Amino acid sequence: MNQDYIQADPWSIIEEGFDREQVKSSESLFSIGNGAMGQRANFEEHYSGETFQGSYIAGVYYPDKTRVGWWKNGYPEYFAKVLNAPNWIGINISINQEPLDLNSCKKVENFRRELNMKEGWYKRSFVATMPNGLEVAVEVVRFLSLALDETGAIQYHLQILNADVEVSLTPYVDGGIKNMDSNWADKFWNITNIASEGNRAYVNSHTMKTDFSVCTFMQANVFVDGEKIEEAPKVEQTETLVGHTYSVKVAKNETITLIKFGGYTVDRNHPKDKLMEAANKVLDKASSLGFDALLQKQKESWAQIWEMSDITIEGDVKAQQGIRFNIFQLNQTYLGKDSRLNIGPKGFTGEKYGGSTYWDTEAYCLPFYMTTKNQQVAWNLLQYRYNHLPKAIENAEKLGFSNGAALYPMVTMNGEECHNEWEITFEEIHRNGAIAFAIYNYYRFTGDYSYIPKMGLEVLIGIARFWHQRVNFSEEKQQYVMLGVTGPNEYENNVNNNWYTNYLAKWCIEYAIEQIGEVAENYADDHERIMAKTKLTEAEIKDWAKVAANMYFPYSEKHQVFLQQDGFLDKEMIKVQDLGKTQRPINQKWSWDRILRSPYIKQADVLQGFYFFEDHFSKEELERHFDFYEPFTVHESSLSPCVHSIQAAKLGRMEQAYTFYLRTSRLDLDDYNKEVEEGLHITSMAGTWMSIVEGFGGMRVLDDTLNFEPQIPEQWTSFSFKINFREQIVTITASKEGTFFELTGNDTLTIKVNGKFVELIPGKRITA
Amino acid sequence: MNQDYIQADPWSIIEEGFDREQVKSSESLFSIGNGAMGQRANFEEHYSGETFQGSYIAGVYYPDKTRVGWWKNGYPEYFAKVLNAPNWIGINISINQEPLDLNSCKKVENFRRELNMKEGWYKRSFVATMPNGLEVAVEVVRFLSLALDETGAIQYHLQILNADVEVSLTPYVDGGIKNMDSNWADKFWNITNIASEGNRAYVNSHTMKTDFSVCTFMQANVFVDGEKIEEAPKVEQTETLVGHTYSVKVAKNETITLIKFGGYTVDRNHPKDKLMEAANKVLDKASSLGFDALLQKQKESWAQIWEMSDITIEGDVKAQQGIRFNIFQLNQTYLGKDSRLNIGPKGFTGEKYGGSTYWDTEAYCLPFYMTTKNQQVAWNLLQYRYNHLPKAIENAEKLGFSNGAALYPMVTMNGEECHNEWEITFEEIHRNGAIAFAIYNYYRFTGDYSYIPKMGLEVLIGIARFWHQRVNFSEEKQQYVMLGVTGPNEYENNVNNNWYTNYLAKWCIEYAIEQIGEVAENYADDHERIMAKTKLTEAEIKDWAKVAANMYFPYSEKHQVFLQQDGFLDKEMIKVQDLGKTQRPINQKWSWDRILRSPYIKQADVLQGFYFFEDHFSKEELERHFDFYEPFTVHESSLSPCVHSIQAAKLGRMEQAYTFYLRTSRLDLDDYNKEVEEGLHITSMAGTWMSIVEGFGGMRVLDDTLNFEPQIPEQWTSFSFKINFREQIVTITASKEGTFFELTGNDTLTIKVNGKFVELIPGKRITA
Repeated sequence: MNQDYIQADPWSIIEEGFDREQVKSSESLFSIGNGAMGQRANFEEHYSGETFQGSYIAGVYYPDKTRVGWWKNGYPEYFAKVLNAPNWIGINISINQEPLDLNSCKKVENFRRELNMKEGWYKRSFVATMPNGLEVAVEVVRFLSLALDETGAIQYHLQILNADVEVSLTPYVDGGIKNMDSNWADKFWNITNIASEGNRAYVNSHTMKTDFSVCTFMQANVFVDGEKIEEAPKVEQTETLVGHTYSVKVAKNETITLIKFGGYTVDRNHPKDKLMEAANKVLDKASSLGFDALLQKQKESWAQIWEMSDITIEGDVKAQQGIRFNIFQLNQTYLGKDSRLNIGPKGFTGEKYGGSTYWDTEAYCLPFYMTTKNQQVAWNLLQYRYNHLPKAIENAEKLGFSNGAALYPMVTMNGEECHNEWEITFEEIHRNGAIAFAIYNYYRFTGDYSYIPKMGLEVLIGIARFWHQRVNFSEEKQQYVMLGVTGPNEYENNVNNNWYTNYLAKWCIEYAIEQIGEVAENYADDHERIMAKTKLTEAEIKDWAKVAANMYFPYSEKHQVFLQQDGFLDKEMIKVQDLGKTQRPINQKWSWDRILRSPYIKQADVLQGFYFFEDHFSKEELERHFDFYEPFTVHESSLSPCVHSIQAAKLGRMEQAYTFYLRTSRLDLDDYNKEVEEGLHITSMAGTWMSIVEGFGGMRVLDDTLNFEPQIPEQWTSFSFKINFREQIVTITASKEGTFFELTGNDTLTIKVNGKFVELIPGKRITA
Repeated sequence: MNQDYIQADPWSIIEEGFDREQVKSSESLFSIGNGAMGQRANFEEHYSGETFQGSYIAGVYYPDKTRVGWWKNGYPEYFAKVLNAPNWIGINISINQEPLDLNSCKKVENFRRELNMKEGWYKRSFVATMPNGLEVAVEVVRFLSLALDETGAIQYHLQILNADVEVSLTPYVDGGIKNMDSNWADKFWNITNIASEGNRAYVNSHTMKTDFSVCTFMQANVFVDGEKIEEAPKVEQTETLVGHTYSVKVAKNETITLIKFGGYTVDRNHPKDKLMEAANKVLDKASSLGFDALLQKQKESWAQIWEMSDITIEGDVKAQQGIRFNIFQLNQTYLGKDSRLNIGPKGFTGEKYGGSTYWDTEAYCLPFYMTTKNQQVAWNLLQYRYNHLPKAIENAEKLGFSNGAALYPMVTMNGEECHNEWEITFEEIHRNGAIAFAIYNYYRFTGDYSYIPKMGLEVLIGIARFWHQRVNFSEEKQQYVMLGVTGPNEYENNVNNNWYTNYLAKWCIEYAIEQIGEVAENYADDHERIMAKTKLTEAEIKDWAKVAANMYFPYSEKHQVFLQQDGFLDKEMIKVQDLGKTQRPINQKWSWDRILRSPYIKQADVLQGFYFFEDHFSKEELERHFDFYEPFTVHESSLSPCVHSIQAAKLGRMEQAYTFYLRTSRLDLDDYNKEVEEGLHITSMAGTWMSIVEGFGGMRVLDDTLNFEPQIPEQWTSFSFKINFREQIVTITASKEGTFFELTGNDTLTIKVNGKFVELIPGKRITA
């Protein structure tokens, strides 16, 4: 925990004071991104202290060779790595021949960072005394444009406070970068050429193996007290870097301003041989607008995002800051414009975990994007998996499955598996279920069935085939069992009959059969096409149905609960609260074998099933399972507290729900796990959003109807959020005085509030 | 399989014809060793073709950094690596300035290798036509001396058959070697200095991190038609290598002979700063004897070994060759002189697996050494583990155990764990049981109790403490359970209640308690010392007893067998014979997850328990368990067939026993698994020996009495072996005509044959 490091503020993240120890953490927290690219909050000028340099381009990755001590058949030969991209933000400064470097300055005063989430920009300012005694005041504003998402802009103001000096400024583009997580000193980028034209410069490079081509570009202009320097810069070029040096003489207190535009054009969006041309077009647009107008557009773009996705909380500024930070980071990471992209667990803020897509996307992120953006965004997330179906089938084949069975990867970039721990890669197969559930969830929420006949049914068939092959009939139990799996609780590996996985498998098969029928009845052409493509027969479907009807679920008569897996009750059932505090987090304090044989649950497992399928169970059943499993849950995954928060709220346990909420919403801001320097926990931020909307707001869609059961934490005065439900916007405001609804749209909308129907009329505020 | 590659011969391993594809395999098969060092059968002269260069020194290893994708708490930070040592065998030859290199010769004829197991030498000969047209006849004899175990000797004969030429010979010592398994291009050796004196040369080096110092040395003499060349050689030296070049003019058919002695002096045996001095002493001795006398001594040493450990088989030359190859390799690897050394799974023939000590030593190798050598050898093997007890306690502490609980490592060099797959390192804990069993087995066989009060009891206490802490009480079962283990069958990981492990744990605790009582009664001083040292209390012992008395064992009422682990019967129980042949070996054909959830058993697991504790069960019980588990056993570990062979013999199923025997005895000679090029399977060779002695010979020690129940495979006329039983030698010869016993010793000895007492009288041949 590092609770007082970030100043409380409803709209901004603010750091005050320069602390070398915090530089890497702040680089994570002040990261900026625009869905197409992102970067850690590295300084523009050279910094010789401890730093984690990181710039990332969406969809650009590297297939690293899998290296393990002991090979297991089925491991992917390569796995994708999040790649550190060329750096375009660099601006080296030297004053009277001495480089400006905060690490070597005699004094750094008034150091301040602000990430303005409302307007989407990042500012850093300080007054530093250099070793040569010069006092320098700097203020830098930087943003990555949402409007022109191939470019970013920097406005670097510099004043020397105590002398007339000669300043040289070298904005540059650097292709000679390395990955933080490069264990083997591998080289990931080849530079093809470096060019310079007037005040523009370019590094053209491509990734090794994957051969993604990228033009990294910049353009700079320098002004002294507003007057542009017209002299051409001196070009400085190495094998990996190109810089433009401007040397200016300035008097005490005169202001030098450097405006730099820079960014990437990539071959996902342009022909490989037209990247420099594309870069010039971007720079033409950016410079014709100029820094101020581009910043103005940025504010407008973010205003639009917030208009729909903001959650306001009155009476608790830290909670307000927390939820906005979560929503802001999700939008910085993924905007849903491109179905080839997805939501990396660290977004553009670090390299850890590799790969961009986990089951987090379907289980946690989809609800956020589906509810706060237009429908196409959720569609794109679903289509991403449809596009990867052939690779999922290939992946299953590698493990010995056949006949079009599909196993989606645990972690991926391009559809191929990126993870290589056998107990996860081969066994944490419930991910397949989350992908099927997302299809169901999309239709449930949007009412748009079209995805299923067009794409979804093929995915459902591949997944049903996988489950059908993955179970086996137990002569002993006379039921179908699923051996050797890892559930969402990764503190158990290679268990038999994980209830969550078995339940999902049964549901997937039943849902697939249902949808085959639905499509056959209403989309005959699609049905014919899909049957021809998948060669699915009635006999096969019957076999599936037999499995679904005879699936085994471990159950305790004594406790009247489904068991997480076979043998769960053989464990030493000591509750978390009875463990000494010194024992936790167990993933740091205990050996792996001790964790494995303990009853402790890393993240919701049986309860994840109760979350997905809440409507399959009574409230009493939920309560019984919550009371049984919660005491053994250690929440050592960032994805855990939100599900418990939602369920605690459902059970009317608001104090507990609020505690879980706090844990999820300020995880990174308060650095709960002392690891924020590695990057932010992006995907779990969607869970924070769910905690408010589904937990406190009690939002559900049941029988085509939007439901709310609002409750307000004691600590808050009110909270408010919006739901984009089938192209109409519902604003809900819950306060101590009551709950208010407003509808933006053309038609009335009937919703349910606390179980009673309420009719919303556009433009009218309704109390319910 | 590669069945006709090695010629059948009772005493020699013979290869005829030069096949580049076979070079690496032959380098393994023709490896030589003398317990202190060993080397693959690399050519002396330069070879540019595919080769796996390997020289190894007993007890010299390197701690490599553990690198895994995802760290688990408890992993050892370092693990020991079998280190490739400096090469002293090299002799570069060039004739008329052209290097002799079999890979580039125009023709290689009469190529022949022979490993003479009876006399302990290796010979290679060939006639080659060089690119320059010269025909060269070579014959090289090489051996590693048992008498002077720091040196080896090479006699290199060379004739040019079709011209008068100038030959240059460069015997050298090379410290610039790399490990085959060096993934990260690490350097393991530092060379401290290189020296040359007369016809001797030295490379002094030490290993990095472990700092083992080694002097690698050589001495060479060159003769033409028996006449010694007196000119001093030209010294050639690089940063890592020193060579002595002799240039001689020879006429057609004249014979050049180079005699080279070389080897290592190590700081395990000499002061670090006296290694060159020690080397000179060794060379003085070797050269004062000369090559022929040293070879004569070698023959005598091996005759002594064979005198005691030979097994003769009449009527089946391949079986004869197979068993001798196994016995020969075991003796090349370990002679039991030094309790700091142990028996590496690949001996001195390769690098795979790292570490020198597995549970193979106690479970498989101990019986061989105990029975064919004097008692001190077995004592040394036991003492090795006693010496490592503090590290075993440390290892258990790393995993969260306390109070002196000891977990011996899965793989080790110096007592530290060398393995880092969690499912093995943390979970394959039955190894602890094998170590306790070896203590019991030693006393059972030798009748020498003294090891237990002196050392063994402390080991037994540490192990009992471990088991006591490792189980937990299951409220559900009202018994003690052991969760999250891996049994001997490594095709199952992280299972609950592996019967073998639970049974061993119970036995270990009971045996420890029994021995505490025994020592208290008969060795009061030792008892006092040990109780003081271990702080063991009566209350603790009572707690242990409670666990042993209430241990849970999974059992099937239906099949009347103990189950390998909880849930075993939930698997798809298709027998191995009903699997298509194309599916096997499953470890090559199937993905790891498919293997894990299959019922297939890599090596004896429940049956390993029935092997150790045969006398705890009736023959009917053995038969039932054998019939239940054998059909699911795939024997994909080299350690598997021997146990099944012994049990099949016990059940009178000689045809099956013989099949298993063949599989184990010629595993490497016939290259069953197509991997002999990586090195030989040394430890499983002891299993082959057990198959004959315990299987066909039916040798057991029960109630202080040596028992035999001999049976002879149909394919054999007779077989014979010796047992060193309590300082008396029993020779047993089983033939179609009957079984004969001879006793060498001073007293009569009463044994049991097929359940009947038979009195053996020294020097008298008795039929029984």
